[in-house]
Amino acid sequence: MKTITQPDEIQSWTMRQRCAGKRLALVPTMGFFHEGHLALMRWARERADALLVSLFVNPTQFGPREDLKRYPRDPERDARLAEEVGVDVLFMPEAEAMFPDGHATWVEAPTLCRGLCAVQRPTHFRGVATVVAKLFVLTNPSLAVFGEKDWQQLAVIRRITRDLNLPVEVHGRPTVREADGLALSSRNVNLSPEERGQAPAIHRGLLHVARLVEEGETDSSLLLASLGKRYAREMPLGRVEYMAAVDPDQLYPVEEVSGPVLVAVAARFANARLIDNILISRK
Amino acid sequence: MKTITQPDEIQSWTMRQRCAGKRLALVPTMGFFHEGHLALMRWARERADALLVSLFVNPTQFGPREDLKRYPRDPERDARLAEEVGVDVLFMPEAEAMFPDGHATWVEAPTLCRGLCAVQRPTHFRGVATVVAKLFVLTNPSLAVFGEKDWQQLAVIRRITRDLNLPVEVHGRPTVREADGLALSSRNVNLSPEERGQAPAIHRGLLHVARLVEEGETDSSLLLASLGKRYAREMPLGRVEYMAAVDPDQLYPVEEVSGPVLVAVAARFANARLIDNILISRK
Repeated sequence: MKTITQPDEIQSWTMRQRCAGKRLALVPTMGFFHEGHLALMRWARERADALLVSLFVNPTQFGPREDLKRYPRDPERDARLAEEVGVDVLFMPEAEAMFPDGHATWVEAPTLCRGLCAVQRPTHFRGVATVVAKLFVLTNPSLAVFGEKDWQQLAVIRRITRDLNLPVEVHGRPTVREADGLALSSRNVNLSPEERGQAPAIHRGLLHVARLVEEGETDSSLLLASLGKRYAREMPLGRVEYMAAVDPDQLYPVEEVSGPVLVAVAARFANARLIDNILISRK
Repeated sequence: MKTITQPDEIQSWTMRQRCAGKRLALVPTMGFFHEGHLALMRWARERADALLVSLFVNPTQFGPREDLKRYPRDPERDARLAEEVGVDVLFMPEAEAMFPDGHATWVEAPTLCRGLCAVQRPTHFRGVATVVAKLFVLTNPSLAVFGEKDWQQLAVIRRITRDLNLPVEVHGRPTVREADGLALSSRNVNLSPEERGQAPAIHRGLLHVARLVEEGETDSSLLLASLGKRYAREMPLGRVEYMAAVDPDQLYPVEEVSGPVLVAVAARFANARLIDNILISRK
């Protein structure tokens, strides 16, 4: 496995690959790999001639009072895991190389960033969109793969990729979970044992909502009220930041479940903010 | 000369050129060519293996009360002139192909868009930045050439190109002028004969400011006050929208002329808004 830290170097290397007709797959990450990341890498590896993983804890997607400094890091372990999984190139730029002094450009999709996570994290998605646009331009991938846990992120990335004519197929892959249903997240290590015990309620609640829809309930406000009650009971250490039923692509709120609906939630524990979602379709 | 209207087609054609080691030059335009455009094309042609000109009246850079519908067009004459000047490919997409329904992404450099033209045209530069980012992604140029008349536009484009890691050299070229000093602009055709008679005062005033600086005046507010007096006297049909002395790269206002300073102005006539500027350096 090759490790590259310089943006110029990754750009000329990947351009040569693309011009040679090689299909490159990119898995953008912030490191501290868990099985969720590794599943994306394995899936991508099967669909490309070379697999590139970027490891960059992007400062521009953290707000001023957020957990940038607390974000867990272990680049040596990450490199080992990447190598084991068959990554060809690990791109690990410094923050100053990606966002040098004087950086002043933002990529934004404002209509997708009004609700859900954007309410509490108003500058998060412009940071995500900007760094992903830069990574796509720098690494010339044929395809890029993201986890569906960060559904709003995925919707924003699909949108900006299409709108900026970036020649990249964007793929979302299902969330990988612990045996008890908790979505894998690098932030899970910041949960106390007691919080960790309650956190699987997030996913159980979403499955409960899916069941209610299957049984015929279509009123979003009733569904979310029922979800809120469960969270209050089963997860007293987590403060629910939002619960929403939205259109899966456009992300606007949906009052009545008629077609596919995404139910998404965020819950804040003492040192970790967790998100999860479920895609529900009426039978 | 080849004419291409489909974004996909231009992207695959230009990518093949780039991969074959050809140096492509792009001159982005909104058409209605004058000698200013043609000078950019001739200059670019000498520095590349193939010359691409885009002709696209970008709706997203016009405000709701601006002159999109009145913007002069003559695509047949443009195609003839482009062919004469040695353009290899003319890229003329439809508005719906560049900004289809559901388009929701913007590229912005907000710190460069607080003053000058952005005050009266608050969404103009995000429209410019977005379309230029798209054109760069679609046409894979090695270099792109813009006129210095639109200095703020050029500063924004330099910034977003660097910040998004787009592998394009951005070149600015001097404003081409009529014999009486009026900067060439597609909008000049919308001047009445009397307005046309007064409009050269814009450039004369800028030369006057340069002379004052040469004579030792360094106080921006005095320089601009003197400029304003001349405009009131020599150009009563033009309402001065702004006069500013700014840093040439960052565009923040400069109170004292010590290094290079850009003096930029906009003046509004009945059916045309004209801009011009001069780069002044103290000897």
